[in-house]
Amino acid sequence: MRKLKRSARLVEMTQYLLARPHTLISLTAFADRYQSAKSSISEDLAIIKEVFEEEGIGQLHTLAGAAGGVKYIPTVRKEAALAVIREICRQLEQPERVLAGGYLYMTDMIGQPAIMSEVGRMFATAFAGREIDVIMTVETKGIPLAYATAMYLNLPVVIVRRDNKVTEGSAVSINYVSGSTKRIQTMSLARRALREQSRVLIIDDFLKAGGTVQGMIDLLAEFDATVAGVGVFVESGEVGAEERLFHDYVSLARLTHVDLKTKQTTVVPGNYFDD
Amino acid sequence: MRKLKRSARLVEMTQYLLARPHTLISLTAFADRYQSAKSSISEDLAIIKEVFEEEGIGQLHTLAGAAGGVKYIPTVRKEAALAVIREICRQLEQPERVLAGGYLYMTDMIGQPAIMSEVGRMFATAFAGREIDVIMTVETKGIPLAYATAMYLNLPVVIVRRDNKVTEGSAVSINYVSGSTKRIQTMSLARRALREQSRVLIIDDFLKAGGTVQGMIDLLAEFDATVAGVGVFVESGEVGAEERLFHDYVSLARLTHVDLKTKQTTVVPGNYFDD
Repeated sequence: MRKLKRSARLVEMTQYLLARPHTLISLTAFADRYQSAKSSISEDLAIIKEVFEEEGIGQLHTLAGAAGGVKYIPTVRKEAALAVIREICRQLEQPERVLAGGYLYMTDMIGQPAIMSEVGRMFATAFAGREIDVIMTVETKGIPLAYATAMYLNLPVVIVRRDNKVTEGSAVSINYVSGSTKRIQTMSLARRALREQSRVLIIDDFLKAGGTVQGMIDLLAEFDATVAGVGVFVESGEVGAEERLFHDYVSLARLTHVDLKTKQTTVVPGNYFDD
Repeated sequence: MRKLKRSARLVEMTQYLLARPHTLISLTAFADRYQSAKSSISEDLAIIKEVFEEEGIGQLHTLAGAAGGVKYIPTVRKEAALAVIREICRQLEQPERVLAGGYLYMTDMIGQPAIMSEVGRMFATAFAGREIDVIMTVETKGIPLAYATAMYLNLPVVIVRRDNKVTEGSAVSINYVSGSTKRIQTMSLARRALREQSRVLIIDDFLKAGGTVQGMIDLLAEFDATVAGVGVFVESGEVGAEERLFHDYVSLARLTHVDLKTKQTTVVPGNYFDD
């Protein structure tokens, strides 16, 4: 890269860091990239760090020493996240969203990458401190949420299939009971998709009785993998917590009331915003 | 937002623009946001524009006049894209990827958000000049590609389902013949997922005989929607083009040879890199 003035270098470094969340970049790499002294790079990083932290974009962790460098940790402030979630709750309360079985039509919302990006940033903030190797979700609507989160956490995604596709090679399948329909269903994951001992963050769009998430947890056991966390976009508060086998999860919104006759619903911020 | 020095303002404006691709932002909005004169903002934008264009990050389109403003168009240069695709081709040629039926195991690659982001940027560059309202894909492996593209083009995504799910409301279903397996399959899309007259960019992971993409094209006709473009990550060059009903598509990689016995494959850059 040609040598840049400080103003241009700040622009380039900002985009470089934003494109590489949770990645340690050494001062030497930056000094080489911009043909600049480490002292100048350090001054630039101090400016970027202040803006990122003041404006709630994220943190810039600096590690001192020979192996030192800088790592961008994307975050969102609770109050900013809450404002976004309140608007999402308002939209989710639209009566035309109520579907048979007490489900909510959310596909249009999940279809908006900008909303997914904001939600992914919230999950990335909620789970930033955990040791995670991979993010897992089940097809179909969990996928955009899982990828948006993975982008900010710099982690790979594995997608559990609801059947066993020819293009995946050998797979592990388990049966699980969907808590809502009480029907036995199958989910499967390619044997080569997940390493043993992986620490896995489970992300899904909707949590009702919890059968699907519990199925993923059971599937992890087959791979000698462990649950590092569970994050759901919307949980149904109509299901008593005692009915679920797992209790440690983060929800961003909670459907507390559905009237199938009047199509009135109440959606409030989830347990992430408790306290 | 508090008033920032120029250096801090450049960092903030860079992240603000990067987070809002294909979105017109007025000079007035920037001037208000940073409590600065429009002349200062214009100077900042000139610096950002130069860096974005010199470093191949994208273009900054400036519109003059009272309704004027600035729009960030993410792009990637052909030679940079080609270097990424050559590395992807090299990885796709690993013999352990060959599956029954001449398919390639690509799930691990699709599971990496950073690779998806680069591929999405290529599609966004290829289709930046087209009039597009929405991006369509079919579950499951096309979804990460569609979202990565949609993020850069600032467009919504609709996901065609391989069956009709209860949580979607009324849906339109069509039958199509999967060209590879010659079996009749069903795909469906919720009636409310797509407005009539929409101009649709179809994105998918793998193009063989083209039955799935043709199915999506047929489905669009049911919604009085039109095809604005077709982008596929990998096409199989073993299928003669004359066997497909559609011929206008962009591929990023091409599988030109598969030997099921020796598991040797040849993967080369796709038609996007022709000429």
